[in-house]
Amino acid sequence: MAAAPLFRRVALIGLGLIGSSLARAMRRGGLAGHIAGHARSQRTRDKAIELGFVDSVHAAAAGAAAGADLAVVCVPLGAYAEIGAAIAPHLARGAIVSDVGSVKQSAIRDLGPSIPEGAHLVPGHPVAGTEHSGPEAGFAELFDGRWCILTPPPGTDAAAVERVAELWRRCGSQVEVMDPRHHDAVLAITSHLPHLIAYTIVGTATDLEDATRQEVIKFSASGFRDFTRIAASDPVMWRDIFLNNREAVLEMLGRFTEDLTALQRAIRWGEGDKLEELFTRTRAIRRGIIDAKQA
Amino acid sequence: MAAAPLFRRVALIGLGLIGSSLARAMRRGGLAGHIAGHARSQRTRDKAIELGFVDSVHAAAAGAAAGADLAVVCVPLGAYAEIGAAIAPHLARGAIVSDVGSVKQSAIRDLGPSIPEGAHLVPGHPVAGTEHSGPEAGFAELFDGRWCILTPPPGTDAAAVERVAELWRRCGSQVEVMDPRHHDAVLAITSHLPHLIAYTIVGTATDLEDATRQEVIKFSASGFRDFTRIAASDPVMWRDIFLNNREAVLEMLGRFTEDLTALQRAIRWGEGDKLEELFTRTRAIRRGIIDAKQA
Repeated sequence: MAAAPLFRRVALIGLGLIGSSLARAMRRGGLAGHIAGHARSQRTRDKAIELGFVDSVHAAAAGAAAGADLAVVCVPLGAYAEIGAAIAPHLARGAIVSDVGSVKQSAIRDLGPSIPEGAHLVPGHPVAGTEHSGPEAGFAELFDGRWCILTPPPGTDAAAVERVAELWRRCGSQVEVMDPRHHDAVLAITSHLPHLIAYTIVGTATDLEDATRQEVIKFSASGFRDFTRIAASDPVMWRDIFLNNREAVLEMLGRFTEDLTALQRAIRWGEGDKLEELFTRTRAIRRGIIDAKQA
Repeated sequence: MAAAPLFRRVALIGLGLIGSSLARAMRRGGLAGHIAGHARSQRTRDKAIELGFVDSVHAAAAGAAAGADLAVVCVPLGAYAEIGAAIAPHLARGAIVSDVGSVKQSAIRDLGPSIPEGAHLVPGHPVAGTEHSGPEAGFAELFDGRWCILTPPPGTDAAAVERVAELWRRCGSQVEVMDPRHHDAVLAITSHLPHLIAYTIVGTATDLEDATRQEVIKFSASGFRDFTRIAASDPVMWRDIFLNNREAVLEMLGRFTEDLTALQRAIRWGEGDKLEELFTRTRAIRRGIIDAKQA
């Protein structure tokens, strides 16, 4: 006999890249008795049914949440407060509310007030993704071998945290529990700043005169291409990340700008030793990533 | 009977990623009667013989160049002037001197004065590469489907240019002829600035306190990883690129910094519309790259 599913009814609020990948990974692992999906657009709901990664779709978030013992919010951060208020009254008693957003202090700020008595807020962040968006972009293997960070507020029920941890482990991930503020600082440098920079340089190239822009595309294999991939990520999701992790992003951006200005000066004054020293040092961190099997 | 090789004896000055890939691609296409390789280090020369992509190795550049009808300089830009002077007296009459460097005005400035009467300087830049270095890193397919830009100085013999173009086409590349100054401007934005930024942000992360740095490695899958790959490229090669394309790099860096400052301000003041507008616009350039089959 197959093991009982971890959750009886899971509400996935949002069926984009992450939401639909989570549905597929839960299907693969037999982790949910019923997966109820909510998406605002009819097209996404139709696609979810066609692709078969949910058991039911709902035009209202409340409909998906009705009777759910787990709700996972998979929408841009700017919609959290509204979604939290919409789903809370409909959840099963003692339900867990989680999410997959890239900023955790704001997730707690925006979802926290809606969590009913007896329910549990266990925010999560699967550190995985691609530059593609939408329900067709998801796949069950997205989380395999990747980290998922949980940031429960102080005093959260340990059993609820463990159930969410187990869900992610059975979706293929390694789980780490972290302070929300620390999470936001680490992700500011590993994710938010890289995306900001990639968006910027691709924007700078876009503003070049037409003839040069065509050549930028033609000769993109020389480094630029990697930035365009990053800068093709979902615009609304990223707008909300920057608006909701403002403080940490501005801090890391300040450090980056100082370092870039120093390099600019080294180039202007022909200080080859300084350039070579930095370029040699940065190789070590790549080696660390390869050793950590995250390459 | 097989077609006659394009060149009787090719001297490859430098046997790193690009030099050794070119050797392999020439082998694959039967493009050279004899491939003579020069590398400064004994280890590289031994490895080249062991891997079998050259017919002879030479501790002195002059030895590889002796009697060659084509010499291709595949060393960092800072060594060009010295290499040019060392090989020039030994080339066959009417030989072609080319290179694979990422800056073309400085290539012409540094190699030009050594080119003997009757010989031809046809600088080239295969827009292809990986983050790996050394003779083991090369492979014959590196140039397949990629661009190679030739930047002959005004008045260069058209037949010589065509022979080099044919070499690259038969190594799998598409060839474009371009003004050296324009090349350096285009590559400043598509290649040099992306590398500078990647080196900078990886350096910024390296300078974080130890605990955070370990987490940066752990959670690098979120965007940072792509930058570390770029920032693992050969330090001396890149030092020389920045020192030799100073003007164009500083110009593009100035534009980038202005754009980044504008975004920083938008984040600080919570101007979500501005962020979303840029993030939407940058998707289009990614689409262009995919359409141009350079993704």
